[in-house]
Amino acid sequence: MRITLIGGTGDIGEGLALRLGRETDHELVIGSRDPEKARRHAEDYRERIDKRGGKAAVEGAANPAAAEGADLVVLSVPPEFLVDTIGTVTEALSEETIVVTPAVQMRRDEDGFHYEKPDASDSVTAVAAEAVPDDVPVVGAFHNLPAKRLASLDAELGIDTAIVADDETAGETVAAVAEELEGVRAVRAGGLSNAAEIESITPLLINLATNNSGLHNLGVRFS
Amino acid sequence: MRITLIGGTGDIGEGLALRLGRETDHELVIGSRDPEKARRHAEDYRERIDKRGGKAAVEGAANPAAAEGADLVVLSVPPEFLVDTIGTVTEALSEETIVVTPAVQMRRDEDGFHYEKPDASDSVTAVAAEAVPDDVPVVGAFHNLPAKRLASLDAELGIDTAIVADDETAGETVAAVAEELEGVRAVRAGGLSNAAEIESITPLLINLATNNSGLHNLGVRFS
Repeated sequence: MRITLIGGTGDIGEGLALRLGRETDHELVIGSRDPEKARRHAEDYRERIDKRGGKAAVEGAANPAAAEGADLVVLSVPPEFLVDTIGTVTEALSEETIVVTPAVQMRRDEDGFHYEKPDASDSVTAVAAEAVPDDVPVVGAFHNLPAKRLASLDAELGIDTAIVADDETAGETVAAVAEELEGVRAVRAGGLSNAAEIESITPLLINLATNNSGLHNLGVRFS
Repeated sequence: MRITLIGGTGDIGEGLALRLGRETDHELVIGSRDPEKARRHAEDYRERIDKRGGKAAVEGAANPAAAEGADLVVLSVPPEFLVDTIGTVTEALSEETIVVTPAVQMRRDEDGFHYEKPDASDSVTAVAAEAVPDDVPVVGAFHNLPAKRLASLDAELGIDTAIVADDETAGETVAAVAEELEGVRAVRAGGLSNAAEIESITPLLINLATNNSGLHNLGVRFS
């Protein structure tokens, strides 16, 4: 499969690139607004994977080119850039492309981080679904993965990612890719309208790391 | 400690009574609107604990009497009854009483369960904090415990409960009680304003049980 990681130069995108690169045979494309930055990061990821005895196909390109011909487009961008970023790749999307959104909107005050519902939607996942052309399936996934731990290839995971999708086939495709990652289990949480409760876990994970010595870079496991 | 479980005749209250009764030396009082029902359940809990070789102090009483002299009052009631129930026990509350709220407000549609914010507050935990007298500390805890599994004394837990409190001492007291339960870890999530993200997990746990064969009576573990 050809998997494009828009925003693959940072945050959750870095970890997904490294682990997908090491643990799967998918063809990976790192997308960024700046194609040079995308290529630099792709080279860095290849080297880090090679060092651990892997052999990964990771390329870099500007977002619109990166999305061309992708089977999966993961939008690993801050929520405030989500709709604009989708605009830059819309021409590359079709009913054959699955758009995956891991983004979460939060606000911070003196007490900690709080889930923030987008103005006109229930969740950032719903915002993504509204922003893509009607025939493009959207899947919510990877919301609660700990970015730093994911990007640290020696770290063990043992965590879940909850998947929401209105298009069941698309959801199953993303779940299968998620489960190719060692130590990740994909669990199904139903349709896109169930995304807010998943997104809400991310600020909680940060609050838990702040308030408990010994807990950091947390993920979640349902059992 | 004297722990009163208002609404201790059902849902999470039953499991808390049985496990606190078996695994701790606290004096337990089951509260209900109907004192006869409370006493019947208290007797049933004593018998179920005795059968497993435990010896529990569990009594039953009408809510106002049950709350008299309590160190901890756990409000295990549906969110729509929370404020009225607090009204019936207010006279028994003082700055020496810790009020614990595990309640979560949800709505259901064809897609599943959804977190529902109370009309004028961020969370049900906040509703409880507003309804008690100003000097009474409120702690949010036990929101995401699986009721049936908790009430099944042979079931293993291995789950977390996230604690929120503005009064740190009160929070630590409740965390210590929670950790007396075998297989339960208490994690601190900061102040009461961080409760909504914890409450939101409960509808997600139900959605996960609905959509994944093999997953049911789920709890959550942060790791």
